[in-house]
Amino acid sequence: MQPASPYNGGVGSVRFEVVAQCPVTGARAGLLHTPHGVVETPVFMPVGTQATVKGLTPRELAEDLDAKILLANTYHLYLRPGHETIRRLGGLHGFMHWDRAILTDSGGFQVFSLSSLRKVTDDGVLFRSHLDGDEHLFTPASTVDVQLALGSDILMALDECLEYPVSHETARQSVRRTVSWARAAFEHFRRQGETASSLFPIVQGSMFTDLRRECAARLVELEADGHAIGGLSVGEPRALSLEMVEAAVPLLPRDRPRYVMGVGLPEELAEYVARGVDMMDCVMPSRNARNGCLFTSRGRVVIKQARYKEDAAPVDDHCGCYTCRHFSRAYLRHLFLAGEILFATLATLHNLRRYLDIMRELRQAIILGAFPESARRLCALPGEGK
Amino acid sequence: MQPASPYNGGVGSVRFEVVAQCPVTGARAGLLHTPHGVVETPVFMPVGTQATVKGLTPRELAEDLDAKILLANTYHLYLRPGHETIRRLGGLHGFMHWDRAILTDSGGFQVFSLSSLRKVTDDGVLFRSHLDGDEHLFTPASTVDVQLALGSDILMALDECLEYPVSHETARQSVRRTVSWARAAFEHFRRQGETASSLFPIVQGSMFTDLRRECAARLVELEADGHAIGGLSVGEPRALSLEMVEAAVPLLPRDRPRYVMGVGLPEELAEYVARGVDMMDCVMPSRNARNGCLFTSRGRVVIKQARYKEDAAPVDDHCGCYTCRHFSRAYLRHLFLAGEILFATLATLHNLRRYLDIMRELRQAIILGAFPESARRLCALPGEGK
Repeated sequence: MQPASPYNGGVGSVRFEVVAQCPVTGARAGLLHTPHGVVETPVFMPVGTQATVKGLTPRELAEDLDAKILLANTYHLYLRPGHETIRRLGGLHGFMHWDRAILTDSGGFQVFSLSSLRKVTDDGVLFRSHLDGDEHLFTPASTVDVQLALGSDILMALDECLEYPVSHETARQSVRRTVSWARAAFEHFRRQGETASSLFPIVQGSMFTDLRRECAARLVELEADGHAIGGLSVGEPRALSLEMVEAAVPLLPRDRPRYVMGVGLPEELAEYVARGVDMMDCVMPSRNARNGCLFTSRGRVVIKQARYKEDAAPVDDHCGCYTCRHFSRAYLRHLFLAGEILFATLATLHNLRRYLDIMRELRQAIILGAFPESARRLCALPGEGK
Repeated sequence: MQPASPYNGGVGSVRFEVVAQCPVTGARAGLLHTPHGVVETPVFMPVGTQATVKGLTPRELAEDLDAKILLANTYHLYLRPGHETIRRLGGLHGFMHWDRAILTDSGGFQVFSLSSLRKVTDDGVLFRSHLDGDEHLFTPASTVDVQLALGSDILMALDECLEYPVSHETARQSVRRTVSWARAAFEHFRRQGETASSLFPIVQGSMFTDLRRECAARLVELEADGHAIGGLSVGEPRALSLEMVEAAVPLLPRDRPRYVMGVGLPEELAEYVARGVDMMDCVMPSRNARNGCLFTSRGRVVIKQARYKEDAAPVDDHCGCYTCRHFSRAYLRHLFLAGEILFATLATLHNLRRYLDIMRELRQAIILGAFPESARRLCALPGEGK
């Protein structure tokens, strides 16, 4: 068993330590101790959906980006190659050759966004695979089992993800179900006597602050090692996403990490950090990279544009990534237009570096007591680079 | 000007040195001195068609594979992004961040295989781009100019590539034209006073030994720094390809490198080396990699096969590549079935390593006087691995 710690009274092995706090905003710098290393927070977690961050080797993730934690998708890995297969091959860490921390999501978001013919009951959710149409059942207990088979360091409890907008009544029913599923998940998780991982519940409640608060209050009773806020980035205005975070955060214990799922744009990261968020993930940097949209310290570069045809400058001359150290915008544009695989690699390396650099800058600013200035500068980034 | 050397009386800067010779076969080990480093021969050159070896960073090519020379395609780069663009961006070496040697082909093969509506005259070949249908003219002089703009270390003279089979008369006409184009190319090349690169002519002659011999004899008069044998791997039986090489090689000077274009399978490499060939290139290792066919020391592994689903072994337990050191067949199969970009990277890294390892093994065997045994073992590889 993990020895009792001053930071953490939960059952799992993830411990959180706040090392500095912004005196003006809710921003804090912390250390997240996991069985696979210490993660400095606030942290952005690159998304490795199918046991790979698209386009990058684990060596590039560790050595170029110094990423300390990745997110992988329970839904995808459950369907292919199957969690039992991954368990037999050493869990996700062994399977994908990643010896740092891994967080897995609950599967809920993908069930509700990718699968068809789903049927939600109090027991769980019945759905058809987007790959072959086969029917599967996810329950609070089964998704814990899947994530334990994957060997995840941080697991998520099954939640119901709603589209936007929905009625207050629909959202209320859904919060009731998410809370009941979370209780079932924790009961099952604790029965396993698992000490090498932690389970986080997910605050839902659509875009209703009262429901967000109620959901958070109920979930805190579970005494989890950390808490997630989900159901955002589903089409709502950005101001509303932030409002939902603002509603939930004050109810979540200060000594546990707070994780907002599926956000955000580079210029939004500081907004969440300012509200006391410690962890984030998003496909944005990697997906946009593959689509030719590069994030820089001066805004976006849409690499296919003709003005970059003979541009010998790097994507971002303030960036120290492998791509910016060695390749011109002109070369990247050529790779993009030629449909070359190397474009995905170089662009993803750069965009993820940009996200991680922003988070490192914010963390440093918190520690130095200069978070508001840093945040203001980062939030004011233009949409399109020179 | 390059100082006169005992190895090389040509005009260019590439010098060749034979360091060992097999007493039984025609195999020899050499050193190819280029303006961008020394290349140990026999050598296999990875193909970087559009200024990138598909799926690999130049760092992986240099640090993982220790490739000393790459091939790039004149036709592709001429059309996109354009040779003048590449010249302005530091030539191919600067553009793609590769400071080792680069060989460019003549453009002939792609004009004859990819473009449409071509018209061949004694002046050159008029063709339509496979990208946008625009009309372009390649002449012996213009393709030299394109390759000089690319900053290639080794250029190829424009040649006419025939389909297979053709009549003796057609092949005879084509040899006449290829020789006349080569003369024009050398005249133009020498007028430029270029000292940082060498131009190789290409022996053609379809599958007729008399024409191959005649073509080789005529081209040797140009006193080039090296010679290529082209027009193979166009659908002919493998025995015939080897016969054409056997016909041409004895006519090519022993103190200059011999390059057979577009070959071959792993088990064929030793066959060419045995016949006195020093340089080869082929898309096979990289293209097959992307299609899930992996070459190993025990034969082929077709990674999608169900038997690899939970196979924890590396692709080849005798291989020291990044892929084999860290990833299982099961993981590679998963990446392949999931259509992940990382598969292309890991598979290409492995297949190219296999080709380069074979060439290093053959070179070592030549130096140690054990080439025939090595060659016999490598030529007897089964088609399908365990």
